[in-house]
Amino acid sequence: MPNSDFSSVAGRLAAVRAAMRAHGIDACMVPSADPHLSEYLPQRWQGREWLSGFTGSVGTFIITSDFAGVWTDARYWTQAEAELAGSTVQLMKIPSGASVQYVDWLAGHMQRGQTVAVDGAVLGLAVARLLEQALAAGNVTLRTDLDLLNEVWQDRPGLPTAEVYELLPPYATRSRTDKLAELRAAMAAHGASRHVISTLDDIAWLFNLRGADVNYNPVFLAHALIDPVGATLFVADGKLPPALQATLRKQGVLLAPYGEFASTLAALAPDGAVLLDPRRVTYGTRRALPAGVAVVEAVNPTTLAKSRKNDAEAAHVRATMEQDGAALCEFFCWLEQTLANPQRAPLTELAINTHITAARARRPNFVSPSFGTIAGFKSNGAIMHYRATEANHAVIEGDGLLLIDSGGQYLGGTTDITRVVPVGAITAEHRRDFTLVLKGMIALSATTFPKGTRSPMLDAIARAPIWQAGIDFGHGTGHGVGFFLNVHEGPQSISPSAMPEPHTAMEAGMITSIEPGIYRPGRWGIRIENLVLNQPAASTEFGEFLRFETLTLCPIDTRCLDHALLREDERAWLNDYHATVRQRLAPHLSGDALDWLHTRTEAV
Amino acid sequence: MPNSDFSSVAGRLAAVRAAMRAHGIDACMVPSADPHLSEYLPQRWQGREWLSGFTGSVGTFIITSDFAGVWTDARYWTQAEAELAGSTVQLMKIPSGASVQYVDWLAGHMQRGQTVAVDGAVLGLAVARLLEQALAAGNVTLRTDLDLLNEVWQDRPGLPTAEVYELLPPYATRSRTDKLAELRAAMAAHGASRHVISTLDDIAWLFNLRGADVNYNPVFLAHALIDPVGATLFVADGKLPPALQATLRKQGVLLAPYGEFASTLAALAPDGAVLLDPRRVTYGTRRALPAGVAVVEAVNPTTLAKSRKNDAEAAHVRATMEQDGAALCEFFCWLEQTLANPQRAPLTELAINTHITAARARRPNFVSPSFGTIAGFKSNGAIMHYRATEANHAVIEGDGLLLIDSGGQYLGGTTDITRVVPVGAITAEHRRDFTLVLKGMIALSATTFPKGTRSPMLDAIARAPIWQAGIDFGHGTGHGVGFFLNVHEGPQSISPSAMPEPHTAMEAGMITSIEPGIYRPGRWGIRIENLVLNQPAASTEFGEFLRFETLTLCPIDTRCLDHALLREDERAWLNDYHATVRQRLAPHLSGDALDWLHTRTEAV
Repeated sequence: MPNSDFSSVAGRLAAVRAAMRAHGIDACMVPSADPHLSEYLPQRWQGREWLSGFTGSVGTFIITSDFAGVWTDARYWTQAEAELAGSTVQLMKIPSGASVQYVDWLAGHMQRGQTVAVDGAVLGLAVARLLEQALAAGNVTLRTDLDLLNEVWQDRPGLPTAEVYELLPPYATRSRTDKLAELRAAMAAHGASRHVISTLDDIAWLFNLRGADVNYNPVFLAHALIDPVGATLFVADGKLPPALQATLRKQGVLLAPYGEFASTLAALAPDGAVLLDPRRVTYGTRRALPAGVAVVEAVNPTTLAKSRKNDAEAAHVRATMEQDGAALCEFFCWLEQTLANPQRAPLTELAINTHITAARARRPNFVSPSFGTIAGFKSNGAIMHYRATEANHAVIEGDGLLLIDSGGQYLGGTTDITRVVPVGAITAEHRRDFTLVLKGMIALSATTFPKGTRSPMLDAIARAPIWQAGIDFGHGTGHGVGFFLNVHEGPQSISPSAMPEPHTAMEAGMITSIEPGIYRPGRWGIRIENLVLNQPAASTEFGEFLRFETLTLCPIDTRCLDHALLREDERAWLNDYHATVRQRLAPHLSGDALDWLHTRTEAV
Repeated sequence: MPNSDFSSVAGRLAAVRAAMRAHGIDACMVPSADPHLSEYLPQRWQGREWLSGFTGSVGTFIITSDFAGVWTDARYWTQAEAELAGSTVQLMKIPSGASVQYVDWLAGHMQRGQTVAVDGAVLGLAVARLLEQALAAGNVTLRTDLDLLNEVWQDRPGLPTAEVYELLPPYATRSRTDKLAELRAAMAAHGASRHVISTLDDIAWLFNLRGADVNYNPVFLAHALIDPVGATLFVADGKLPPALQATLRKQGVLLAPYGEFASTLAALAPDGAVLLDPRRVTYGTRRALPAGVAVVEAVNPTTLAKSRKNDAEAAHVRATMEQDGAALCEFFCWLEQTLANPQRAPLTELAINTHITAARARRPNFVSPSFGTIAGFKSNGAIMHYRATEANHAVIEGDGLLLIDSGGQYLGGTTDITRVVPVGAITAEHRRDFTLVLKGMIALSATTFPKGTRSPMLDAIARAPIWQAGIDFGHGTGHGVGFFLNVHEGPQSISPSAMPEPHTAMEAGMITSIEPGIYRPGRWGIRIENLVLNQPAASTEFGEFLRFETLTLCPIDTRCLDHALLREDERAWLNDYHATVRQRLAPHLSGDALDWLHTRTEAV
């Protein structure tokens, strides 16, 4: 095709602009999204990355005839600045708490009578409504029936083909027929006889199935339609082994081709209401429903149920955390020995990922990392979602802090942990920042709070000790975590940018991260992260209260402490934590790693 | 009128039901509201109280043919239970964070084809939209053109007639022409050439005028219409002295009759957009605008500007706090002496109000109390908005805690303070609760936070030390406070039931209360309240930070402390506070009150 050079961002932008002109489109928006509104996208839907050159996992791209920009939040600013340097694509910084700021930009920059195109198949329904309303106010047309990207992306990848497998007992702690019965009761309570699910973790949880269609999340591409007696799973041919298909069929779960989801919806009879979650289905899905079908909107019942881990799941996670923590001890022991060896070959950030994943892989029931390891030395630690690459990584030498954020998917649960270790000599400033972050983590970890507290409201408790020093961090304090599912899972979110709506309420059984940080661009980054489980704490005349049981088991490096900044109660928390870590991990370790555990869990 | 006995709630309900039947209305809703969406209502708009018998300041009444209920939040539950006992009116408890729960109730209980009536003249526009949407979904009609209350309330009071007066320098720190110019710039920034204001404190602030049309808030009934060169104040005839009218006229501010507001709006030419605040105008006002007039919706610019007190206002408030604190020392000294006198006549909760108001009234520039004094002894302290009455009050005798929440309006600012004092012998449980509340107040008072932090997000910092003991309280931690204006003023609100939207951001100059509490129904109530001023704290690489300057000056009774529960940093905060209180108040006191100040500010 003449005049198109798809090997560069500039060439791709030129091709999209040509397609826009051909269709009479004035602005084209490409969200980071797939038809399942996933966080990790199959390559087929990584169009925003392909088009803009920005590889961060969250960003919204908008292109007009004379503008191209990616909206992303503070976690990605440093990365985006580097990746977009030299291109015509601008970084549009989204301030904390303004996640759909690009809607305002479009509303402000479009002229009356102009047209904005977004592929409705990958546009969340809730966001679509905001966009529709904002554009309509200025007499701007929204077209959602065009996939402009598809017209120019000639070597666009196809659908992933990984096999779907069953999560079996003991790790599947409830049968899918139980879960389906509970879901149908929730549907009935909402006055709905049908329910559409597009979110992959909801589907995997509901049917006790897992897959490998995207990196890190053990999910598979499917939509589901639940009715009062059966369920249909829309999934690509050949992904489920025949035996599993037969098992499902006996339980009333039928398979249909992935591509027939929309047409099935379009053919629904108007004889009962359909329950759907406007944050978890696309605009395209909503539009596929016939006009006569009544719709009830609510948070997916599976999203709520999945977040409340039962006792058996909690027990699996505790056992998993022992294995994960033991793997980390082996890794950190190796790391210290390697750094201490003057004859060693250069150690890179890339090697961290290799060794940490290898240590986890030696443990039972390990499946995969739960996200790409973030190993950032010195200034790289300040890049919140840093990823070392072959082309661009640091050698770990000299003096500074090394931040390592990593996690594993195990049949018995999902882990996510961040630790910071000193390399060479560290400074008083390093110690101060480290201790402030630790104080924030302890403050929230030790909090008791009423059941039903809206999770975003807890954020300031972790931030207060850091704010006190005139410091803040540009990400939420914590996210929900799945059970051998997504490492980022709702509905709870301990974040100032999450609205404290009813569905964000804290309930017993939820697993959440607590991970405050301090990032000094160009200098260092510090984050300390544990996963915690909501546990009943007390029942008083004021109601039910919850506390956090810390699940993550791994020493927090006390060599980085500024002891003068720790209060007595904080020191006691840390010593208690290390006593638990030692007691729980020692049985899983031996030799040098066991010695290392004893050293690094000594009381301070 | 036969068959109607207006002397009882039952008789009034019967009359309203008859009117509903006559108009074909299935449910009638009576909010606590006037055409200005005020907190304190002129008697003319106290229809919800008249109809339901519940006298709390916030509540929404709904009546159908077979149901009558008042929705109110936890602050009022104890009071409402007492007042509604024996009537057919049910208390409908609004959980924290669900302020418009009655909307769901209506949506859930109305049948298709039924009609709900609310007087649009007293229905906030934002709430009206929620209601309209919720009812439309169930094919229920909303009628807003009927004032059913008016049909049955034969002796309904007329409009208040108090005179309007000018707030003069030095207490008026900026001229009204300056304020109008700034407002017009904000209107232009919003693309609006006209602006409608109905909220009384916005109007009083903008025009440097004050009045006495409602209890406690020095405001007057008016609407305002601002245009690019002038302004019209819709106010009842005869309320402004001729000289003040002439002054205003020279400054481009014209008067029009109060009753002509709606007809003036209806006659607006469609030659420019009108700025209005959907939370601060009524549905009736919005509907009065001709269909062709463009509307821009935003928070009133005056609401934002008014909340940010300038340096001159802050200096006035500091001086006012010294006078207010000195008055309180005189009062508390008298109270202790009286309680210690075995020959005294019985001391009642009512006498507290009399003496505390008298002490304030002896101070310069005192105008009125800023709200009805809450003096609750023992179990009455647990009733959050308790008001002792001639018919129902306690005698202060025996052993227990006495909670006193009071405040004053002065030309130099508005005060609001709660203290708890011991009467006779108090118990270890009293001390524990008192100390937990104090810890919550200190925790938030000592917090530094980023400028722009959404104020609701700070709430948990005050609550955490109380939660830790399995205790919570059913009101927000703090509210904004005006400058010789409303004691409850937006846009900031340190409350879990306020959504942390952009307009709730903390900015320098805002004055807010910090007032955690513990309430044990039937036993005691504890609340400790100071007002604080947002002050710049630091400017770092992470941005601008604010801290709280404590404005309120009055000893916190250390006889109620459980010393073992106080951390060293908390003890230091308390001692620093008392040193400041002693130093700032001593020059304004003499004799016994000065001695009392010295005793009650001793370090612990």
